[in-house]
Amino acid sequence: MVSGAATLLERNVGVLSLPSTRLITAQDIAHVVASVGVDHVMDAMISRLEKSFLSFDANKYSVPARFGVNYSAPCLGLIEWMPVLKHGESASVKTVTYHPENPRANGLPSIMSFGSLFDARTGRLQALIESTFLTAVRTGAASAVASRLMAKTDASTIGILGTGAQAVTQLHALSRCFPVKTVLYSDTDADATASFPSRVGGVLPEEIILAAAAPEDIIAQVDILCTCSSVAPGEGPLFEDAQTRDWLHVNAVGADFPGKTELPTDLLLRSLVVPDHREQAAVEGECQALETSQIGPDLVTMLQTDGGNLNARNRVTVFDSTGYALEDDVAMAYILELADQHSAGSEIDLSYLTGDPLNPYDFNMPAGHR
Amino acid sequence: MVSGAATLLERNVGVLSLPSTRLITAQDIAHVVASVGVDHVMDAMISRLEKSFLSFDANKYSVPARFGVNYSAPCLGLIEWMPVLKHGESASVKTVTYHPENPRANGLPSIMSFGSLFDARTGRLQALIESTFLTAVRTGAASAVASRLMAKTDASTIGILGTGAQAVTQLHALSRCFPVKTVLYSDTDADATASFPSRVGGVLPEEIILAAAAPEDIIAQVDILCTCSSVAPGEGPLFEDAQTRDWLHVNAVGADFPGKTELPTDLLLRSLVVPDHREQAAVEGECQALETSQIGPDLVTMLQTDGGNLNARNRVTVFDSTGYALEDDVAMAYILELADQHSAGSEIDLSYLTGDPLNPYDFNMPAGHR
Repeated sequence: MVSGAATLLERNVGVLSLPSTRLITAQDIAHVVASVGVDHVMDAMISRLEKSFLSFDANKYSVPARFGVNYSAPCLGLIEWMPVLKHGESASVKTVTYHPENPRANGLPSIMSFGSLFDARTGRLQALIESTFLTAVRTGAASAVASRLMAKTDASTIGILGTGAQAVTQLHALSRCFPVKTVLYSDTDADATASFPSRVGGVLPEEIILAAAAPEDIIAQVDILCTCSSVAPGEGPLFEDAQTRDWLHVNAVGADFPGKTELPTDLLLRSLVVPDHREQAAVEGECQALETSQIGPDLVTMLQTDGGNLNARNRVTVFDSTGYALEDDVAMAYILELADQHSAGSEIDLSYLTGDPLNPYDFNMPAGHR
Repeated sequence: MVSGAATLLERNVGVLSLPSTRLITAQDIAHVVASVGVDHVMDAMISRLEKSFLSFDANKYSVPARFGVNYSAPCLGLIEWMPVLKHGESASVKTVTYHPENPRANGLPSIMSFGSLFDARTGRLQALIESTFLTAVRTGAASAVASRLMAKTDASTIGILGTGAQAVTQLHALSRCFPVKTVLYSDTDADATASFPSRVGGVLPEEIILAAAAPEDIIAQVDILCTCSSVAPGEGPLFEDAQTRDWLHVNAVGADFPGKTELPTDLLLRSLVVPDHREQAAVEGECQALETSQIGPDLVTMLQTDGGNLNARNRVTVFDSTGYALEDDVAMAYILELADQHSAGSEIDLSYLTGDPLNPYDFNMPAGHR
């Protein structure tokens, strides 16, 4: 036995405590959201997203297209990772899963998610954050930001194709920014159609009229359309192109899977198409149907150039919202702030630290335990 | 207000409990490893890896090359995700961070990690598992599996270049499979060199001789060489090619960053180079220096073809170990088994479930909290 080994065996070093990892669970989020109210949360998210996009500096951030695994058997599904690196400071990643059969088959949301936050100087895991709720909220908020830039400011008739969980926050977000009077909605699932008013009514002004309608009637009449369906890859579009309002703005939210598209190509070709993330949208967004030259500026560029002289409010526009990791980064920072203000959340000692970072066995060497 | 909204406001639905997420922390791992002993853990990991490689069926698994963000300022670092999909059953992902300045600058391991386990039929997060320790163990175990296939069965002299945390498990693993008599080691960091015997002695048979030596002397004398350094990208190789044993087997473990290589190209060109994951090794392994045609079969193929008639034991061989996600998948499954056997670990309710999966606001709508 070499000298030193006995010392090691006798040392019996315990696990030292790292600065631990902050844990924000669904209950914590329910607590803080109940404290401040969902309107406050949505307003803050819209405002923070807009500020974050306006001040976005591509030299300070890396936001690669998301990455993961997807499958079509025994059910359609995917698990993906969406990282954001703020150079020299922090990195966040949202893990997102999509299983469209979940609500009917398993009583679970289609989209479930959690976020992780890291110190980019050490790799230390700083926080784990439930993000299913945050994903729904930030997706609504992103549509509100895009709509404020591209839709008519007095848009009052909203269309919803696909009345699942995402539709609730789409409509809530738009109702915070537009003088919404009428909502026309449709879903291929009769139960989801029937339950939509009860699910969304609580977060809308009382005077708003909600009415189920046929997709073709919705397309023809609305100022803003949100598509947030679970249409299967290859089964789109949700409707055939037809006459629309000259100023129609579409938030195409459902795209999240290669081959999945919601809008007719003819509609895209006559529209200004603004993706959230160009590279990602070309793989899994409406932009799959377009050549690169047919895709407009991304939303950040549009905001930073005040619409880029593209006359967006007076023409048909499409926000191709595939889900942008920067939105999740903003959402995580916001909920951590709220949790601190309301003393929500806890700490877990997930991470490892040995007494000696050069010895993986340091923590488990009580004498006699070879 | 539409009908139904009042009902929603009055319902005041709480968060329902999902089957919760299993949490395995560093303390939990310390507990179970102390119970069974590190030799048992290493032996089991070697055996399980080998079995897993031998039975690997590419039709049942997807193991894409890992993906993430990396940076060189203000310090060199990366954060990466390593998924494994077992089709129709489960998915695991290891999040791994590498910050080589950590031990000196921050008192933290260079490599830190945690794993997540998902149900691939629903996307539900089943477990969060501390994986810094597991990463060190499985990396050692993988080298043992490769060495058992390609090194001389009576290899007794082992060389170590880079005596950090990974060196401890490399040597431990080899000592479980070979009649090790002498270990020659070197590190560019004098402190890491000096402390190596005390760090590794506790897990080695008493009769083994450990001696610091110059890299050129190590290369010339050993039967098996493990390179596990923190050499900076572009600063390799660790030594110039020179005369070696005709049967030298190298486990090149340090590769984990684009541009980072440890071995001289001339040595690679005269060796059978066996990567753990071909695509990944071509991006960040020793295989960066090779044409595709110069790269040998991967380790799984070598095992499944019993060495592929390549005469590996009688020639110079290199295991290009970039870190294979399948190894982490095996390690996570193993530690979950151990935790169950030893009643370690806890449950957290990270995940979200509303009363209605189609309503993201269901959990936070107590009346009067708009």
